[in-house]
Amino acid sequence: MAERVIGEFQEEQNPELEIPVRSLNNVNFSKISRMIEMGDKTQSRTYFHQNMAKKFMQTFLVASACTELLNAEKTTSIRDLFYMTKHTLSKGENTFDDQPESDIIIEDLEVTINALREELHLFASNRGTMVGNITLRDSGDKINCRRIGSGGWGIPSIVEEHVIQFLKSEAEFILLIEKDAVWRRLNEDKFWRKHNCIMIQSGGQTSRGVRRLIRRMHDELDIPVYVLVDNDPWGLYIYSVVKQGSINLAYDSVRMAVPDARFLGLSSFDREKFDLPDVVTIALSKNDKRRARQMMRYPWFEDKQWQKEMKKLLTSGVKLELEALSSKGISFISENYLPQKIQNNDYLS
Amino acid sequence: MAERVIGEFQEEQNPELEIPVRSLNNVNFSKISRMIEMGDKTQSRTYFHQNMAKKFMQTFLVASACTELLNAEKTTSIRDLFYMTKHTLSKGENTFDDQPESDIIIEDLEVTINALREELHLFASNRGTMVGNITLRDSGDKINCRRIGSGGWGIPSIVEEHVIQFLKSEAEFILLIEKDAVWRRLNEDKFWRKHNCIMIQSGGQTSRGVRRLIRRMHDELDIPVYVLVDNDPWGLYIYSVVKQGSINLAYDSVRMAVPDARFLGLSSFDREKFDLPDVVTIALSKNDKRRARQMMRYPWFEDKQWQKEMKKLLTSGVKLELEALSSKGISFISENYLPQKIQNNDYLS
Repeated sequence: MAERVIGEFQEEQNPELEIPVRSLNNVNFSKISRMIEMGDKTQSRTYFHQNMAKKFMQTFLVASACTELLNAEKTTSIRDLFYMTKHTLSKGENTFDDQPESDIIIEDLEVTINALREELHLFASNRGTMVGNITLRDSGDKINCRRIGSGGWGIPSIVEEHVIQFLKSEAEFILLIEKDAVWRRLNEDKFWRKHNCIMIQSGGQTSRGVRRLIRRMHDELDIPVYVLVDNDPWGLYIYSVVKQGSINLAYDSVRMAVPDARFLGLSSFDREKFDLPDVVTIALSKNDKRRARQMMRYPWFEDKQWQKEMKKLLTSGVKLELEALSSKGISFISENYLPQKIQNNDYLS
Repeated sequence: MAERVIGEFQEEQNPELEIPVRSLNNVNFSKISRMIEMGDKTQSRTYFHQNMAKKFMQTFLVASACTELLNAEKTTSIRDLFYMTKHTLSKGENTFDDQPESDIIIEDLEVTINALREELHLFASNRGTMVGNITLRDSGDKINCRRIGSGGWGIPSIVEEHVIQFLKSEAEFILLIEKDAVWRRLNEDKFWRKHNCIMIQSGGQTSRGVRRLIRRMHDELDIPVYVLVDNDPWGLYIYSVVKQGSINLAYDSVRMAVPDARFLGLSSFDREKFDLPDVVTIALSKNDKRRARQMMRYPWFEDKQWQKEMKKLLTSGVKLELEALSSKGISFISENYLPQKIQNNDYLS
């Protein structure tokens, strides 16, 4: 990119970048790939243009900092990159004023050269831990996730092949759990050993590292992914992002989404199936109802099964947290709920 | 506790519990222990009393659930405990309506029987990761924190001796870092190997697990704790909680606080010492100034050095994030800043 632009300068042309458009009108759900994908609209960014010159230069400033990182074989946070590239020019103007300004340029760069930010050696926040029947290599260290204690292995933000390699796994599936507390309950019960799986907790919305890791394990180990979330619109949204990606980061879907991911629960039908007492339910808020109705209109939830699931949520008027299963006993989730759901293939996808 | 109360019932007395008071007027900073401690005021809770009967019964409901956990050798979250104990009584009244109700009872129980909630097998949220020159055992698994990759070992919430044992450590100090991104930078640079230490990131305010782990390592390995936080009132508060505990959880200080903890940085004097450009500073907000002035009045910050530090923050009018050090180079923090600070014993305590 840099070489081409230098060439254009030398030939006294107006250097130009073609940057894919990241706005909503260039995002679609593809029924073939079953992912939220970016369309092929682009915008051009030229150097000799009053409104574009600054952004043009910012793009190369960020690209240059990423090149520096790549050459030094170092990684850093997008906040660090902001500080690395922020400085005052001779006329008193700053290269960047706030971090959102440099974040946008990073996203521009990602789509323009078709690379994840992690491939540019930039990391997002670390979140999520893992335990289970897999041995992997992380930055040269061999990590046996069967012998990693109660704490588990902290999932890094950058899990590309040059950092993480999968060595040996006999696991038959991956279980992604929204809630840390539930993951710990299952880890203490050694659920992963009895049911031969890998267990990940995402601490709410899945981080980029967790999404990418799940995608790589799903592809490379060729095993299914089950998602276990609260029975509420937010839980469904977490599942939805794992499965088809998000509208905001549509360009990441192609490397992060797992269209085959299975929704194991909590389903609105589980309340009756497992005879959960009314006292542990929580009334849907106005906002919950609005979100549920909105999600019913998403093209990726148009399937009859999903419509039925969401209708049930709305007609029941209540939601349910994963912890509500504890009203049936401390280990009800690991000894009854999950084995029965998995045994009966009782999931949506 | 239960046996005594049953005895009182059998003797047709009015059973009574003496519960230490957790409110502000029973909290003091002790200049001897250098911790925020609970005083010796108590309140009594009796069974035959219209306003106390419910709380009295709730106390035993929670105590009974904890006994169940202890007997089953299982641990769970305080949210789980809420669901375990929430049920509807015959007259349509619930044992608990909201979780804050059961949380208060848990705290009552902790102070009454002088046990951490972790000793009652209740966990808070998991947060924080660790890497460095230590081998430990976690739930029977041997964890070598020198070979734990880029992700690190996830610090569990319960780190009591029956879960975590320290096996071998040659580390000369513990470095607690507020920011995950900075911890990763230092881990990538293998700072802990060069400077023979243990590195922990707390992801903002330290979790209970992190505080207790640091305290245990400080005591049992007999090594100092350095704290590295942003140069702002929030960073100082994080340090303060590690050092002398918090007002809200004063009764935990005695097992979690590390009065010897050293404040390594960022100091308001570092800006000049390390020649950091003005462009990376951030103006103090009104709230920052208010908080800084408030902290200057805390008895544990009355030392001259601390007064000087906070005055400098206020007069400079700016704060500084740890990431701001990256303006001097990606690895400035690991190759220049930290070695110089540690070498020169340039810390406050």
